[in-house]
Amino acid sequence: MQKMLIIGLGLIGGSLGLALRLAGKNGDIPSFEITGYDRSAERLQKAAQMGAIDHASDALIAAVQDTHSVMLATPALAVPQILREIAPFLRAGTIVTDTASTKAAIMRWAEELLPANISFIGGHPMAGATGSLEAARADLFHHATYCLTPGTAANSQAIEKLHQIVQMLGATPLLIDAATHDRCVAAISHVPFLASVALVEMLTNDPQIELISKLASSGFRDTTRLAAGDPTMYHDISLTNREAILSWLDAYSEQLQALRQLLAAADEAGDARLKRFFEQARQQRQNIISAKTP
Amino acid sequence: MQKMLIIGLGLIGGSLGLALRLAGKNGDIPSFEITGYDRSAERLQKAAQMGAIDHASDALIAAVQDTHSVMLATPALAVPQILREIAPFLRAGTIVTDTASTKAAIMRWAEELLPANISFIGGHPMAGATGSLEAARADLFHHATYCLTPGTAANSQAIEKLHQIVQMLGATPLLIDAATHDRCVAAISHVPFLASVALVEMLTNDPQIELISKLASSGFRDTTRLAAGDPTMYHDISLTNREAILSWLDAYSEQLQALRQLLAAADEAGDARLKRFFEQARQQRQNIISAKTP
Repeated sequence: MQKMLIIGLGLIGGSLGLALRLAGKNGDIPSFEITGYDRSAERLQKAAQMGAIDHASDALIAAVQDTHSVMLATPALAVPQILREIAPFLRAGTIVTDTASTKAAIMRWAEELLPANISFIGGHPMAGATGSLEAARADLFHHATYCLTPGTAANSQAIEKLHQIVQMLGATPLLIDAATHDRCVAAISHVPFLASVALVEMLTNDPQIELISKLASSGFRDTTRLAAGDPTMYHDISLTNREAILSWLDAYSEQLQALRQLLAAADEAGDARLKRFFEQARQQRQNIISAKTP
Repeated sequence: MQKMLIIGLGLIGGSLGLALRLAGKNGDIPSFEITGYDRSAERLQKAAQMGAIDHASDALIAAVQDTHSVMLATPALAVPQILREIAPFLRAGTIVTDTASTKAAIMRWAEELLPANISFIGGHPMAGATGSLEAARADLFHHATYCLTPGTAANSQAIEKLHQIVQMLGATPLLIDAATHDRCVAAISHVPFLASVALVEMLTNDPQIELISKLASSGFRDTTRLAAGDPTMYHDISLTNREAILSWLDAYSEQLQALRQLLAAADEAGDARLKRFFEQARQQRQNIISAKTP
């Protein structure tokens, strides 16, 4: 039986465990023996209780020496330290992957810190969920696009194997280079997060905040949902994808200024340009959303 | 039996009809006899089929002459023309209300166009839904805050009556003046709409739009949901609440610039200020959302 180690048992790590164990039971894949590692003893215990892992380990090195593949499911900035710690103890041929929302920095660290006999393949499930281990589910990755970014040392057999694992999660693998990934994800995830944070922050210390809260409805809730995301995760994302984010943030500010000018200049009785702008946005969003589900 | 006329049978008009007819059947209120008017014969017929109205009328003046109360459920800029048309034919003592998302312009038009023997009370259900008549539901207003802004000619009996009707919809009435309403709603609804439009528009003509669409997930979908709203409705909102929107739009741009500076200046290894900013936003959002449901 193949052994797998999941490092970091939050929403993603827990869901990976649940999904792979379920697929193993269903006979979809040669079943894995899954060990979970987490710095928090509480999360370790919880993951075992939930059935997300077969074994809980609080000894990282021992667990690493005894596995065929490693999935890192930690915030991005925790990755280099873990790679540094585990690198000397990985078996030759081990597949190592991660789940962080940025890929260029991760790939640099993997190249720098892992020996050449390790197949590192960056990973990013576009599951779009927020929450902690409690919210983990076996079907979290169903119908999600799952980005895979093979490192230079990754052999084709390892890539093929991770490809299969991703399909068994119910997700669709997408091979993508790190720079393209980071640019695209900044546009549809990281900048929307910052946009949502700014919407909330502009209300801070407003004298009418109580009234504003009474009036806030599902529109506000949805538009700002990303602002409820894990601050550590987004802090790490922001720092590891800074250039792409800054560039899109400028494009975003320009769009807002264009809208501002259009509105300031609009005729009170009606302005066809403003309406056309809104119609275009509605159509554009529809195109993007519907391209997702063919 | 009290007669009511609903003008405009979209999502809101249709849902008002469904909710009031249901409440009448349940004996919650003295039942209304509801007539619906819409410019579109198709919508009229559909509303009747759905059971949203008792009678369909394509003769506005005749319908107005024969009613005790009028609910306008049209986009904001359609309101003055309708008030102008119906004003000479309203019975003395008729209650007139609207459902537009801005109140100051509406209140000005009502003062200007309606005779002093009409009780105009501006209304705005914070139901947060988007869609057309097809999406109308009797429970659309359940647990929603429903703003009421009495005009200077509105008598207390009329205000009390509309208050009761709002409660029968399952909503919570909130008496609020027009300027305060418009400022608060610009912050939690109109500017989030523009923020969402700009997020979509910045992707227009991007060479990687196909890839971006594949990667877009629920985060993008939620953050941009408002951009799918009715362009005519938002066009009218933008023009009738321009000053408040421009002011919040500037506050929003300032927040984005503050975030940009923080990110550009952050230490690659980690920046406590950035993380604190995200933590604050998460907490602030939680406070706003939870204040809604006591």
